[in-house]
Amino acid sequence: MNDMNQDMTSAIEAQMTAIGQRARTASRIVGHAETRTKDAALLAIADALEADETTLLAENRLDMEAGRIAGLESALLDRLEITPKGVKAMAQGLREIAAQTDPVGEITDLKYRPSGIQVGRMRVPLGVIGVIYESRPNVTADAAALCLKAGNAAILRGGSEALHSNRAIAACIQQGLAVAGLPADAVQVIDTADRAAVGALIRMAEYVDVIVPRGGKGLIERISREARVPVIKHLDGVCHVYIDDRADLEKAITVAYNAKTQRYGTCNTLETLLVAEGIADRVLPPLGRMYQEKGVELRGCARTRDLLPGIAAATEDDWYEEYLAPILAIRVVSDMDEAMDHIARYGSAHTDAIVTEDYSRARRFLREVDSSSVMVNASTRFADGGEYGLGAEVGISTDKLHARGPVGVEGLTTQKFIVLGDGHIRR
Amino acid sequence: MNDMNQDMTSAIEAQMTAIGQRARTASRIVGHAETRTKDAALLAIADALEADETTLLAENRLDMEAGRIAGLESALLDRLEITPKGVKAMAQGLREIAAQTDPVGEITDLKYRPSGIQVGRMRVPLGVIGVIYESRPNVTADAAALCLKAGNAAILRGGSEALHSNRAIAACIQQGLAVAGLPADAVQVIDTADRAAVGALIRMAEYVDVIVPRGGKGLIERISREARVPVIKHLDGVCHVYIDDRADLEKAITVAYNAKTQRYGTCNTLETLLVAEGIADRVLPPLGRMYQEKGVELRGCARTRDLLPGIAAATEDDWYEEYLAPILAIRVVSDMDEAMDHIARYGSAHTDAIVTEDYSRARRFLREVDSSSVMVNASTRFADGGEYGLGAEVGISTDKLHARGPVGVEGLTTQKFIVLGDGHIRR
Repeated sequence: MNDMNQDMTSAIEAQMTAIGQRARTASRIVGHAETRTKDAALLAIADALEADETTLLAENRLDMEAGRIAGLESALLDRLEITPKGVKAMAQGLREIAAQTDPVGEITDLKYRPSGIQVGRMRVPLGVIGVIYESRPNVTADAAALCLKAGNAAILRGGSEALHSNRAIAACIQQGLAVAGLPADAVQVIDTADRAAVGALIRMAEYVDVIVPRGGKGLIERISREARVPVIKHLDGVCHVYIDDRADLEKAITVAYNAKTQRYGTCNTLETLLVAEGIADRVLPPLGRMYQEKGVELRGCARTRDLLPGIAAATEDDWYEEYLAPILAIRVVSDMDEAMDHIARYGSAHTDAIVTEDYSRARRFLREVDSSSVMVNASTRFADGGEYGLGAEVGISTDKLHARGPVGVEGLTTQKFIVLGDGHIRR
Repeated sequence: MNDMNQDMTSAIEAQMTAIGQRARTASRIVGHAETRTKDAALLAIADALEADETTLLAENRLDMEAGRIAGLESALLDRLEITPKGVKAMAQGLREIAAQTDPVGEITDLKYRPSGIQVGRMRVPLGVIGVIYESRPNVTADAAALCLKAGNAAILRGGSEALHSNRAIAACIQQGLAVAGLPADAVQVIDTADRAAVGALIRMAEYVDVIVPRGGKGLIERISREARVPVIKHLDGVCHVYIDDRADLEKAITVAYNAKTQRYGTCNTLETLLVAEGIADRVLPPLGRMYQEKGVELRGCARTRDLLPGIAAATEDDWYEEYLAPILAIRVVSDMDEAMDHIARYGSAHTDAIVTEDYSRARRFLREVDSSSVMVNASTRFADGGEYGLGAEVGISTDKLHARGPVGVEGLTTQKFIVLGDGHIRR
């Protein structure tokens, strides 16, 4: 590194430290803010987003144009775009989060112990949350709202490709905070494009309590490796639907078709379809045709290819693949045990579903499949904070500790023990 | 490193990998074991410990003698010793854990969503837990029992000074597993003294889901730094009691005396006493005398020394200190806000208590002090898995994510989302 780069890096580190200190100070105020104050801010941000729609769309167009010139691929441009419908969805998400019960301060399990003390748990904010994300500007609004509702200060670092959009949304957030009388530092949106900012953010254990990275696998793995702050990871979703031989044929076809085709680029999209051999000859011909008519490329095991002649052979690598594209791997298995073995071996423990009418199998699948979401007779596409009633999600955790699956307001809190006594001592 | 050392290290790594693989396999069986099977194992281990008391005590004497020859300090020898009462306590702990409700498989919050699906959460085991600890052999029994009840496989690595004791306890655990028909690999006690075993254990992310280190600050910091597996940290306890000017004098003196003197070497022992200036002249003279009669060395701020002439001056370092010894720092503060500022600045977020009869202050202290246990009118010594009704604890977490405070059976589980539908698809 030459001297000039070094100087710039330390300047950014100093800037990030200052941001961290301000976030820590703000977190104490937000952490003790009354429910109605936080909700007033959320509603005011929603109003500001709708009032500023014209500006938001104009700023977003700047990002879209720059993205096109820079040759961003269409999937990225798709995620980057803010539509009038998108503005409404952001505002709606904020209002849903405002309408939720405030989890902060909730006391549960308060019970008397034989010693005479009462022991319970109180839900409290985590403190300062750092969110690092790419493209989608709606994450700026969603993450700010979830952090705020949970009583945390937020440091948000979006992608440089969404700079103008994120700044416009940040301005609405600042308006909302001001209306409610909450500190401006409760939500800080970092708009430097410098990568050193991320490096500093993930190492400030003194000022940041948890990092939520959202983006490609490479980004998340690098952050997990280099972070000194705990990370709630959002890794890949190699999701499965297993069609059992006791499935209702129509439900099976409907669910498997929706799970793959409702949207291709999302982490809860079906990537490998497993079909019990006892039902494969009734499921695969009609379902395969539907996929092909929709333009989905199919790759199958030998038994699948007997039933769907002409499709490509799936290789060992295909079973590990998160395509995020109109491609589907299909394997015929002998029974549910073989399906669960396949999921345990090749899956990413994100979201897996069974289609069956068999009570005992449904019960076993729910219990034994070790994924963040396990479903019976429902599309994997439902694995989503909004669909689960969390209002929004700051990410879908593929970690086992702390939070698993869609992370909403509650996932951004923790519980401490409280003890009430009357001069009690330990003997 | 010379070639011989390198060969030994890779031999140990290979050995640890094999242990990890066996633990992973066993975890699938334990994770789906019925409640009565797990409880039968726990009760059989308790019986075996009591039946083998003579052997346990004899093996422990070997460790004690070796420890004395090696010149272990008396606090360590104290923790190492197994008494007949200690055997009973271990057995009792196991029976309490057996009597607890099984958390595994518990489904909560199962609710219909507007889309028609039902979404809920199911509590499931973490998988494989690695516990790294020093001296106390009772951790072997406690940790095995908590992991087992939570449906996890355990890899336990005790201190080399407790080798014989741990082997004897491990033999009882194996008897209990065999009685219940659970795999022997469900609890593996590593008895190599080689430090490379720890290094390998904390890096086997494929086979180990979480590491719980118990021991000195140095050990825990090193493990946290080097681990590739998530760590539930148990760091130091710089615990405070704040005596408010609206405290009941008798309760204040009783609680503060007990919190310091009931036991010196534990992490929930009082290390800094904070006293409101409005009550200091009534609290400190009698309480100071009691401490001094018990042999506790006092170190005070200027105002404390006015009231307790002759005691040493506390330095800035004293406020950060976890003495784990009969030493106490005392500071007179102007009010609760100054006390809370002191706790936020110098404390370790472990356990902090207020003594007050004032409702509003108690309510604020409980909410605003950001520690794993916050208490009103009770001794900090209550911060303990047994006292909290967890049966035992695998450690007291000073982390914010996942588990905070004493970690019992529930802290060794996680929750996944479950979705029940009837052919539902996302639109």
